[in-house]
Amino acid sequence: MKRTAMIGQLSPTHASQTVVLQGWVNRRRDLGGLIFLELRDRSGLVQVQVEPDSPAFAEADRLRAEYVAEIEGTYQLRPEGQRKGGAADYEVIASRVAVLNTAKTPPFELEKGAEVAEDIRLKYRYLDLRRPEMQRRLMLRSKAVAAVTAFLDGEGFVQVETPMLTKSTPEGARDFLVPSRLNPGEVYALPQSPQLFKQLLMIAGLDRYYQLARCFRDEDLRADRQPDFTQLDMELSFVDQEDVLELQERLLAHVFQETLGVKLALPFARLSYRDAVDRYGSDKPDLRFGLSFAEVGDLFAGGAFAAFAGAETVKVIAAPELTRKQIDELERIAKQNGARGLAWAKRSGEGLSGGISKFLGDQTAALLERTGVAEGGTLLFAAGGWKAATAALGAVRLALRDLFDLAADGPAFHVSWVTDFPQLEYDEDAGRWTYMHHPFTAPHPEDVALFGTERQGEIRAQAYDLVLNGFEIGGGSVRIHDPAVQEKMFAAIGFTPEEAHRQFGFFLNALEAGTPPHGGIAWGFDRLVMVLSGAASIREVIAFPKNNRGVDLMAQAPSPVTPAQLAEVGLELLGD
Amino acid sequence: MKRTAMIGQLSPTHASQTVVLQGWVNRRRDLGGLIFLELRDRSGLVQVQVEPDSPAFAEADRLRAEYVAEIEGTYQLRPEGQRKGGAADYEVIASRVAVLNTAKTPPFELEKGAEVAEDIRLKYRYLDLRRPEMQRRLMLRSKAVAAVTAFLDGEGFVQVETPMLTKSTPEGARDFLVPSRLNPGEVYALPQSPQLFKQLLMIAGLDRYYQLARCFRDEDLRADRQPDFTQLDMELSFVDQEDVLELQERLLAHVFQETLGVKLALPFARLSYRDAVDRYGSDKPDLRFGLSFAEVGDLFAGGAFAAFAGAETVKVIAAPELTRKQIDELERIAKQNGARGLAWAKRSGEGLSGGISKFLGDQTAALLERTGVAEGGTLLFAAGGWKAATAALGAVRLALRDLFDLAADGPAFHVSWVTDFPQLEYDEDAGRWTYMHHPFTAPHPEDVALFGTERQGEIRAQAYDLVLNGFEIGGGSVRIHDPAVQEKMFAAIGFTPEEAHRQFGFFLNALEAGTPPHGGIAWGFDRLVMVLSGAASIREVIAFPKNNRGVDLMAQAPSPVTPAQLAEVGLELLGD
Repeated sequence: MKRTAMIGQLSPTHASQTVVLQGWVNRRRDLGGLIFLELRDRSGLVQVQVEPDSPAFAEADRLRAEYVAEIEGTYQLRPEGQRKGGAADYEVIASRVAVLNTAKTPPFELEKGAEVAEDIRLKYRYLDLRRPEMQRRLMLRSKAVAAVTAFLDGEGFVQVETPMLTKSTPEGARDFLVPSRLNPGEVYALPQSPQLFKQLLMIAGLDRYYQLARCFRDEDLRADRQPDFTQLDMELSFVDQEDVLELQERLLAHVFQETLGVKLALPFARLSYRDAVDRYGSDKPDLRFGLSFAEVGDLFAGGAFAAFAGAETVKVIAAPELTRKQIDELERIAKQNGARGLAWAKRSGEGLSGGISKFLGDQTAALLERTGVAEGGTLLFAAGGWKAATAALGAVRLALRDLFDLAADGPAFHVSWVTDFPQLEYDEDAGRWTYMHHPFTAPHPEDVALFGTERQGEIRAQAYDLVLNGFEIGGGSVRIHDPAVQEKMFAAIGFTPEEAHRQFGFFLNALEAGTPPHGGIAWGFDRLVMVLSGAASIREVIAFPKNNRGVDLMAQAPSPVTPAQLAEVGLELLGD
Repeated sequence: MKRTAMIGQLSPTHASQTVVLQGWVNRRRDLGGLIFLELRDRSGLVQVQVEPDSPAFAEADRLRAEYVAEIEGTYQLRPEGQRKGGAADYEVIASRVAVLNTAKTPPFELEKGAEVAEDIRLKYRYLDLRRPEMQRRLMLRSKAVAAVTAFLDGEGFVQVETPMLTKSTPEGARDFLVPSRLNPGEVYALPQSPQLFKQLLMIAGLDRYYQLARCFRDEDLRADRQPDFTQLDMELSFVDQEDVLELQERLLAHVFQETLGVKLALPFARLSYRDAVDRYGSDKPDLRFGLSFAEVGDLFAGGAFAAFAGAETVKVIAAPELTRKQIDELERIAKQNGARGLAWAKRSGEGLSGGISKFLGDQTAALLERTGVAEGGTLLFAAGGWKAATAALGAVRLALRDLFDLAADGPAFHVSWVTDFPQLEYDEDAGRWTYMHHPFTAPHPEDVALFGTERQGEIRAQAYDLVLNGFEIGGGSVRIHDPAVQEKMFAAIGFTPEEAHRQFGFFLNALEAGTPPHGGIAWGFDRLVMVLSGAASIREVIAFPKNNRGVDLMAQAPSPVTPAQLAEVGLELLGD
C-alpha cells in the first residue's frame, strides 16, 4: 500500500476519509479495551484508535514501542473536549493494521532523549535521530543547503569540488594524513580548507565559485570542535570588499527566509575590529544586548589611584544590581580571562559605594554620567593593557548576559560584520610578526606603505568576519593579487622568497599566471545551523558526530589497524 | 570600476553604449597600427580594437597573452562584411585600458590545449581550466548539482552529510586509512560509500535522504578511475522498486532539462539482466544502436558442426560488410574478451560464403531469416558458455559501433534500466556463493523460497542499474528489512551469525531496532557529467584530478612523510 500522505501533511481536507499512514509506534496505551497508538513519522504524530471489535485489533495488539506499522483507517475529528488544536483535533479510527517490522526494546526512552547521557545517544544514534528535535535540526540543515545552492547558482556561482586527497599546507593546524599505497612512504593530507584551490579557480577564470566543503583538522578536540567539519566556501573575482559583503548579506537573508521564515534587516551592522574589541571585548561580539564598555582611563590618568593611573586602558561596564556572590563569580571569570581582578562599585543615589568606591572620589559624577549606571547598579572595571583588559571584561559581559538572560530581550538574531582586522600580529613566543588570517590576505591599499616600518602592526587587512549572536559564522578577505604587495607581505613575516616557495611552491607560480583581483569567504556551516536551530552544540546538527576523543561511538571508529594493512602502505607501528 | 556585464551577456541592447569589461587577453594582434585584442571571460570572447590615437593605446600596448585587463569602450556593430553572426557581429572600440595583472608566458598555448600532453595540462591545471571547453564542463557539472538539489529538496529529500572518518567496511575494495593521533595504533577509513549510513538514516526515520558524497577506493587505477569520486547517493523509505525507478526517471529528466535543455522520453526502457546480456552481451548495453544478438543454437544442436553442436549458446550478430582485416581485428577483440575465436560468414545473394559458411549447410535460409543480414553483410558468431559467448560478442558489438560510428545515427542519449540482477553469484575461485551487489540487497519476494536450494543462483534481486549510452551511471536496490530474509541471505553466502556480526556489528543491531521497508540508488556523478558533457574521461569533468599513479601533478601530492609526522600517529616507515 502507498501512504496517503506523511502524517504532518494530513489536513482538514482529509477529514472523514480513509487514509493509509506508515511510521513508528511512538507510544501505545490500552484503555477500556481500546488500543491507543501514537504513530510517528518525521513530519508529525497522530493518535490511532483501535476498537476491540475491529478486524485490526489482533495485529494492533502485537505493536510495541518503535515497531514499524502501516495503519489504514478513517481520519476524523476527535470527540469535543478531547481536541487539542490543529492536527491534534484529529485521530484515526483504524480498520487495518499491518506490522511492517518489529523492534527490540530501545535502550533508552526516546521521549527522554534530551536528558540521556550523550555517549548513549551517540552509540545508538539511529534511535537518537528519531527524536523530533533531532529530525527538525537535520531538516533545517538540509533546507539551508538547498537555499544556499539555489541562491548561489542563481548568482552565477560555479560549484566545484576540490581535492580531498591533497598536499599538506601550513594552515596552522595539524593535517590528517593518508598513506599512499601506490607511492609507499608518501602521504596525502586531508584538506584543512580549500583555500589555495579556490584561489586557483579564480586564477583559472571560473569567476565565482562555491562549495560545501568537508574540512579536516587534527587538533586536540575542545568543547565544541569536530575533527571534520563543513565549510560553505565561496570566492569571487573582479570584486572589492564591498561587493563580497553585499552579496553575503543577501545570501544569509535568503537562508534565514528559507529555513526559518525570518526576515533579516539589511545591511548588517558593521564594526571595525578595533571598535568591537574596544567596546565589547570581543572580535565576535554578541550584539543582541548592550552593556558596551565605557572608556574612563582619562579620568584617572596620572591620578592617585595607582591601579588605574598608569593603565593603558580602563574600561567599565554598567551592570545591573549584583550580589557579592555574583561579583565574586564574575571576578573569577575575569581572572580566568587574564585580568588580575575585577574592581567594582555600586551606585547609591548620586554616589558610589562598596568595592573601590573610596578610590573614585572626584570622578564619581563623571563615571555616573559616562556609564549611565542605574540606581543600585554595579560598575565593573577592568584596567591594564588594552588586549587583556578588554578580553577580561568581554568575558564578564557574556557572563552577565547568561546571568540575567539579557539576550532574551533583544532580537532573536543579530548579525554583524567585524572588519579591518590587523594584517599582522606580533608572535611574542617566536619574537616575530606573523599573519593574522593567512599570508594571501590583502591589506588596505592606503596602509601598504606601512609594511616594513615600525608601524606595520597598524596595517589593516581587507578581512571580515560574519558574526551571529556572538558566534563567528564566517570569515574571509580580499586576497593579494599584486606580486609586489605579496612580496612585501612575505618580507614582513620574515619569509625569504626561497622560504615562500618552499611552503607555497606551485601556488606562487600560479599567482604569476594572470591572477584577477579576487576575494571570498567561508562560513562555518555547522555552527551557522547550530545557531539557526537553537542547538547548544554542533554535535546536535551533525548526523553522526565524533565525541571529544575523536571517536564514533556507533561505528566504533577509529579501530585497531593490522600489521598487514600498514605494510601495504609501507608503514608499521612505531617500535615494532 | 564594475564590469557592465560578463562578456557572454552582452547583447544588441548594449549596442552603441559604453561598456566596462574584465577578463583575460586571449590573443593580441597588431595590424595597421591598430591593436586587436580578444578579451575572454568564462562566458565568452569579444574583440577589442584600440586605435593608435586612443588614450588607451599606451596601456593596451603592454598587454600580452593571459594578462588580466579591464577595458572600457563602445560596444558596436563591426563593419559589414566582418560580421560573423551573433555576438561576433560586435566589437568594442576601447577608450580606456587598464592592466589589472600581468602574466608570465604560459607553458602551452591554451587554444591548443586539447592536443597538449595530459601531464602538462594537469601540472598547470589553473591554465588548462581557462580553456572554454573545460569551463563549459565544470559549469555543466555545477548546473547538474543545482538541478539535483532543487529537485530532491522539492521531493522532500533531506540532505545529510555522512562521516568521512569512519570504519573499514567490507565493500570489496581497499580502504584508504587515516591514522588517529588521539588513538595511536588505530585508524579511520575513508568511506567507500555511505551505504550503511544511508540505511541507518532510514532506520532513524529520515524517510528520504540524499547527498553528493565523496567516496574513496584504494584500487589500482585503471584507465578511467580516480581514487576519490563523487556519488549522488539517495535512499527512500516505505517504497518498492517501482517507486524508486519512477522518481529516478523524473530526476534524471530534470537534470537533462536543466543542463542541456534536452527532454528525455519517460518512462525509460527496461531490460532484465538476463535479456540485456542475452541480446547485447552486456549488463550496461549501449542502446543508441541495434545489432542485437540472434540465438541460433537450436539450429545446430546435435548437428554435425561440432563447434556449435554442443554449445550452451550460439549467438550471432548481423554486421555490415566487413573486410578480412576488420574481421581479424574483431576476432582479436573477441579473444581478448574470452572467446576462442570469432566465426563468420558473408551473405551473398541467398547464400553464405567464406568463413564457416561451408559448415552451415542446411541452416543458411534459417540464418538469413533470423538475422535479417543484408546483402554483403557479415554474420559473426560466438558459441560456448552463455556468459563467455555473450561477453565476447558484446565486445565485438561495441567495436562495430566504433568502427561504423553506429551510435551517431541513434538518439544523442539513450537511457535504460537493467533490472532483476542475480541475487547471488558463484565465486569459482573461492568455491562458494557470494552476493552480487551487497548482502543487504532484497531478493524478489517470489524467489525467497529458492534460498538454500540448488536453484539459489536463479534468485533475482530487486536491484537495478541506470544505463546511459552504454555507461552504468547508477545502481541500487531495495534493501532487506525482514530479519528472517537477512538470515537466509547470510546463510546462502556462508556467513554464520557470528561472522555476520563480526563484519557488520552495530548495523545488524540497528536493523533490529525498527527498520522500515527502504531502497535507494547511487549515481556515479562524475561519469554522468562526463556523458552529459561529451567528455572522453572523468578527468575532464573533475577540476583537479589525479593521474593514473594517484598523483596530483599540480599540488605534488602525495608527498614524502617525515618520521616526526609518522611518530605523532604512532607509526614509522616499514623497516626503519
